Amino acid sequence: MTTYRDAGVDIQAGEALVERIKPLVRSTFTSGVLADIGAFGAFFAPDFSCFRQPVLVASVDGVGTKLKVAFLMNRHDTVGQDLVNHCVNDIAVCGAQPLFFLDYLATGRLRPEVAEEIIQGFVEACKANGCALIGGETAEMPDFYAPEEYDLAGMIVGIVEREAILDGRHVTDGDVLIGLPSTGLHTNGYSLARKVLLSHFSVHDRPALLGGASVGEALLAVHRSYLQPIRALIDAACVHAFVHVTGGGIPGNTVRVVPKGLRFEVDYTAWERPPIFRLIQELGQVPEDDMRRTFNLGIGLIAIVPADRKAEAMACLEALGEHPVEIGKIVTA
Amino acid sequence: MTTYRDAGVDIQAGEALVERIKPLVRSTFTSGVLADIGAFGAFFAPDFSCFRQPVLVASVDGVGTKLKVAFLMNRHDTVGQDLVNHCVNDIAVCGAQPLFFLDYLATGRLRPEVAEEIIQGFVEACKANGCALIGGETAEMPDFYAPEEYDLAGMIVGIVEREAILDGRHVTDGDVLIGLPSTGLHTNGYSLARKVLLSHFSVHDRPALLGGASVGEALLAVHRSYLQPIRALIDAACVHAFVHVTGGGIPGNTVRVVPKGLRFEVDYTAWERPPIFRLIQELGQVPEDDMRRTFNLGIGLIAIVPADRKAEAMACLEALGEHPVEIGKIVTA
Repeated sequence: MTTYRDAGVDIQAGEALVERIKPLVRSTFTSGVLADIGAFGAFFAPDFSCFRQPVLVASVDGVGTKLKVAFLMNRHDTVGQDLVNHCVNDIAVCGAQPLFFLDYLATGRLRPEVAEEIIQGFVEACKANGCALIGGETAEMPDFYAPEEYDLAGMIVGIVEREAILDGRHVTDGDVLIGLPSTGLHTNGYSLARKVLLSHFSVHDRPALLGGASVGEALLAVHRSYLQPIRALIDAACVHAFVHVTGGGIPGNTVRVVPKGLRFEVDYTAWERPPIFRLIQELGQVPEDDMRRTFNLGIGLIAIVPADRKAEAMACLEALGEHPVEIGKIVTA
Repeated sequence: MTTYRDAGVDIQAGEALVERIKPLVRSTFTSGVLADIGAFGAFFAPDFSCFRQPVLVASVDGVGTKLKVAFLMNRHDTVGQDLVNHCVNDIAVCGAQPLFFLDYLATGRLRPEVAEEIIQGFVEACKANGCALIGGETAEMPDFYAPEEYDLAGMIVGIVEREAILDGRHVTDGDVLIGLPSTGLHTNGYSLARKVLLSHFSVHDRPALLGGASVGEALLAVHRSYLQPIRALIDAACVHAFVHVTGGGIPGNTVRVVPKGLRFEVDYTAWERPPIFRLIQELGQVPEDDMRRTFNLGIGLIAIVPADRKAEAMACLEALGEHPVEIGKIVTA
């Protein structure tokens, strides 16, 4: 691995790229980063002083076939944001605060200008989430990837007080499901979405239903971070659990935090489904159940809150400029 | 991401695979793993009690085009070991002890039997290094990867006492370079090695120079872990720095830990170069300098030790069954 601290990316990336990205990457450094030391690994000293029993929370993810849309659009500054935000959400819903992120970029032929755009995406999202970009690996693998293509993976580590871990154990009968809007498909369902949409449109077409956006723009909408609303609800002690709605949709992910003996009910008419999902369903004649198990359908995060804290939770979220919607509840099975 | 704790790999991997790998993955769990909690991230509680200023050390890496040899041999239980050991070495040379590992596996079409072999490799190497395999992501991306192919990335996190970080600052004039043998190419130089060897041989050929091994077997030799000798030298306070010899060879990596005002000298005749490297050089008419900057040439780890501790360091390594060789020294620039 190469640490971004000293060398930027792998040797073959060339001096020019390294010099260009160095200040970018450095701009993500938080107080935990031990800069200017070491050579083979990247160092991070968390501030453990505010934890009695600190627990590390880790997650690894990819962007999946959303990358194909980036290739078609020749736009590479958003996919890094998708990946960081996806990783941040996955550990934030456990109650953790992000500490640092590392990336893996594999490509057929490294184009420094594309690599720089990708890293700009990582940097932007890392800064927005207070997460340091401390290292990465850039691999040129001409026999694996098409010359203009690449794959990305990201790994995040965060920290949580042991007693503050959120894993669904507090979820109880009568809890309310509050949904927060997604910005689009986030990073799931792209195989189906591409199959349906790109057999009817090019990425540059602007179907009326999308209100001015091109198909490619709508598909590339950045997977948002929910770190701020998650932290606000935790700080207000208003929440029993969170659900990050990714592959498997609302049902596939909510089930992960519902204890035995309970189940969840969702009213799918409680919010307006964004146009991109209606377009996919109509054009592809996709059965409603497949839609629900493939896409977030406009809800990217669910907060499961005690019934008697619902009003407070809604107010807390609205104060942040969020648009929370009550979408369901927990009931006995 | 999916945590191996609860689900094994991604939903589409199928129940059968999940059930098969669950006990395998669990066998890597160390006391830090918080099992049976959480859903979106993986939890690890390091034992901080023996650290005054604990620092986390992270690294991410891939296997590179060595994977192509695994595809040709249809053998998938070694590449996971390569990846874990590469990651372990990268943080061990910083003075860190490994805590946990996460993997990313991307493939054109998930074949459960192949995925299981790969994960067996992760498991075997994680166990051997006392490192818990706590999570991973399995992505099926048919438009990115050939149906029978895959790419792998791994991320490791370890821990080190801040004052015990090894980064070359203690390296001084007169220090001795002690090399430890590699097991083969480890994970570097495979593009050149494949180009040369596979234009003369199939992976199943057994050239006399390899002493019975096939070309494929020699190329797939597992990147070994140096954790044990590294820890032994650290515990004996016999070492100023370590060099993990990866891409860039001995010169490209040793330079990372040599302070300004000093340089290193290596006697390339001090050890016998393993046959695989001689075969590549002869068949490919590869210039000596390219050999040195591409391959480890038989030395996978270098310990930089004070001159007056050399005998003790050699004895310490030999007691472990290692075959250390004095290969050079640090001199003023």
